[in-house]
Amino acid sequence: MKKIAVLGHGVVGSGVMEILTRNRKLLERQAGEAVEAAYVLDRRSFPGLAYQDRMIQSIDPVLEDPEVAVVLEAMGGVEPAFTWLSACLKQGKSVVTSNKELVAEKGDVLLALAREHGAWFLFEASVGGGIPVLQPMRESLTANHITEVAGILNGTTNFILTRMFGEGASFGEALALAQELGYAEQDPAADVEGHDACRKICILASIAFGSHFCPREVHTKGITRISAQDVAWAARWGGTVKLIGRARRTADGRAALEVAPMLVPNSCLLSRVDGVNNAVRVTGDMVGETMFYGPGAGKLPTASAMIGDLVTALTQPANSRPLAWGPEKPGSLQPWEESIAQAFLRVSGMDREELETFYPGCRFLDGPEGEELALITAPATQGELDAAGQAAEAAGGKVLSRVTLLEDDR
Amino acid sequence: MKKIAVLGHGVVGSGVMEILTRNRKLLERQAGEAVEAAYVLDRRSFPGLAYQDRMIQSIDPVLEDPEVAVVLEAMGGVEPAFTWLSACLKQGKSVVTSNKELVAEKGDVLLALAREHGAWFLFEASVGGGIPVLQPMRESLTANHITEVAGILNGTTNFILTRMFGEGASFGEALALAQELGYAEQDPAADVEGHDACRKICILASIAFGSHFCPREVHTKGITRISAQDVAWAARWGGTVKLIGRARRTADGRAALEVAPMLVPNSCLLSRVDGVNNAVRVTGDMVGETMFYGPGAGKLPTASAMIGDLVTALTQPANSRPLAWGPEKPGSLQPWEESIAQAFLRVSGMDREELETFYPGCRFLDGPEGEELALITAPATQGELDAAGQAAEAAGGKVLSRVTLLEDDR
Repeated sequence: MKKIAVLGHGVVGSGVMEILTRNRKLLERQAGEAVEAAYVLDRRSFPGLAYQDRMIQSIDPVLEDPEVAVVLEAMGGVEPAFTWLSACLKQGKSVVTSNKELVAEKGDVLLALAREHGAWFLFEASVGGGIPVLQPMRESLTANHITEVAGILNGTTNFILTRMFGEGASFGEALALAQELGYAEQDPAADVEGHDACRKICILASIAFGSHFCPREVHTKGITRISAQDVAWAARWGGTVKLIGRARRTADGRAALEVAPMLVPNSCLLSRVDGVNNAVRVTGDMVGETMFYGPGAGKLPTASAMIGDLVTALTQPANSRPLAWGPEKPGSLQPWEESIAQAFLRVSGMDREELETFYPGCRFLDGPEGEELALITAPATQGELDAAGQAAEAAGGKVLSRVTLLEDDR
Repeated sequence: MKKIAVLGHGVVGSGVMEILTRNRKLLERQAGEAVEAAYVLDRRSFPGLAYQDRMIQSIDPVLEDPEVAVVLEAMGGVEPAFTWLSACLKQGKSVVTSNKELVAEKGDVLLALAREHGAWFLFEASVGGGIPVLQPMRESLTANHITEVAGILNGTTNFILTRMFGEGASFGEALALAQELGYAEQDPAADVEGHDACRKICILASIAFGSHFCPREVHTKGITRISAQDVAWAARWGGTVKLIGRARRTADGRAALEVAPMLVPNSCLLSRVDGVNNAVRVTGDMVGETMFYGPGAGKLPTASAMIGDLVTALTQPANSRPLAWGPEKPGSLQPWEESIAQAFLRVSGMDREELETFYPGCRFLDGPEGEELALITAPATQGELDAAGQAAEAAGGKVLSRVTLLEDDR
């Protein structure tokens, strides 16, 4: 029998316990012997649980039990998870986590600890919920230099945007519905401001490019300013707006990371990823474009990914194929202002001729006669687009909206 | 230095050699030491190759060299691949193959040999070209009982159907273009009759359900009879026709396997997979629906999958996580006639009232007044749908087309 511990008995932690029970026989076959959650840690108490006798409120019993081989963490937050999991790794216990904040902040440190102490540090569930993406990137796509990762990494915002595009809901209405259905927190800032997606693109970029990328360094814009007008123009243009996390290799070998609502053409599969689903597009120099799609969150999908990692940790020698990256490399991140993009703009207070002086080579979109014009700019750096907007506003125009294009529009 | 051998120097085999050269440093980092293709076997000669001195025409040098750790096979066909690879496995050499015919016919035997002799038998490239799908199913989704696998598994037929739906081409025109572009063989039967897709769904079903499924047992229908009329009606219904390979767990624990053109609603992501791309949708009891998308064939994508397997074979202990299935289980396959489906039908020579007597509960599609009617049947077994069609034809009707629906239409 293999003993494990589960830290956190919220949505995901209780999902782990549910799969351990429901698919017990399958897991016994996979792991080669029975798997038992000997400890389940939560500050709260849950009267009536079948495994009530195994609930603990301190990490000590886990650290004091040398038979615990793997610790599954689903508490969230950097502390106390970082301190506790560091202690587990130092004892050679393997760690599986769904905690994207922890991995995005401290992944390089925890990976180094795991390597040093012959343990696994695995975190498939931290990106894309139940979707297998980190392991395929690490193993199946290992022949490739990854040139770009771009994805819909947050289910809450994708649900909101899907409602805005499909049902014509306003941002506020769609958010209220998401909260009613339990897809959004009462304080939705981490989702709608893009911070959750930012943690995930940092994890993906760290795997793809081999050094740590910190969320606080990454240009991050949420979806709160996307309006019904943007929705209407995007449809006319032949696409939709999605909150995209993107990491690209630049021509000079740096990495460009960004989280922002982006205009996605209907010809791109990402435009068809709806509701709370996520999808991650991974481009490699040999394979070309691949995409991984599925439920980006939820109790059982996320727990499914953690149990997949658990079986890896129980059956494969630690670090037989390390998913490792090094510490942050100063200068490896291209400043956002230098990144080249085309943008969709809505502007009022100016005619086409005036606008062309600020946005040379732009293409105007056909739409209803009205106060505002919509255009697609020529490729320019984000800094140049900032400057052009400021100049246009100084000359009496008003930039109502600016949305980066995911793909070049030629 | 790790020595490997490459069998077959066609499209895929030469792609393997290209990646070994172009991404040499990356692979050395992944594998922990340099990887050298010491032998490249092909009956043909390729004057002017940089590795001309390593070309061989017999398997003997490979079998006689104990330093060859891994053999990559991209010759295709069951023989001599089966005999040669069996000999390699018996020596404890690991085998990586892209040969779907071999895996679909002899996978269980080769897996057993690999297990017995402590070697790897890996074949990610045999399904979905460069798309990581077998390894994610085996590892990341291991917490799940797989309930269904359904996918677009053949790029040639998907290219043809995409042209028919997008450009209004006839089957013959689209096939000719596919041949011109090198996507289809001069004898396109294996693709357009569904045999290639059948091999792949058998491999996927064997992994998902744990016992071998033989292509010759599986109901397989190609796309040669899909017409412009089907295309027009499918669009009116709100979907498209795709060649789908599908394997499902039935309620009584058997497996239902099928390859056929199916009507796919626009709401389903598979309907948006265009051109030579493939996609595999994997449904698990815990994770729900996931999908893996990418280039289903081609030199470098397929070679990318083989090199991924190669690095696994070089760095992980054999069978640390066996991708294994047992021999064919008599009675485990549900006869196609018993499988329940809804079908799209085009019928001439009958009015609605008459048709309803043969297809009770059917729903007629709105379309142009003309010779033919189109309808969606109520759910029935394929055998019942056969019988109803025969009865309708005996009464003077003519069933012009019958296409199974991928999803229930309610």
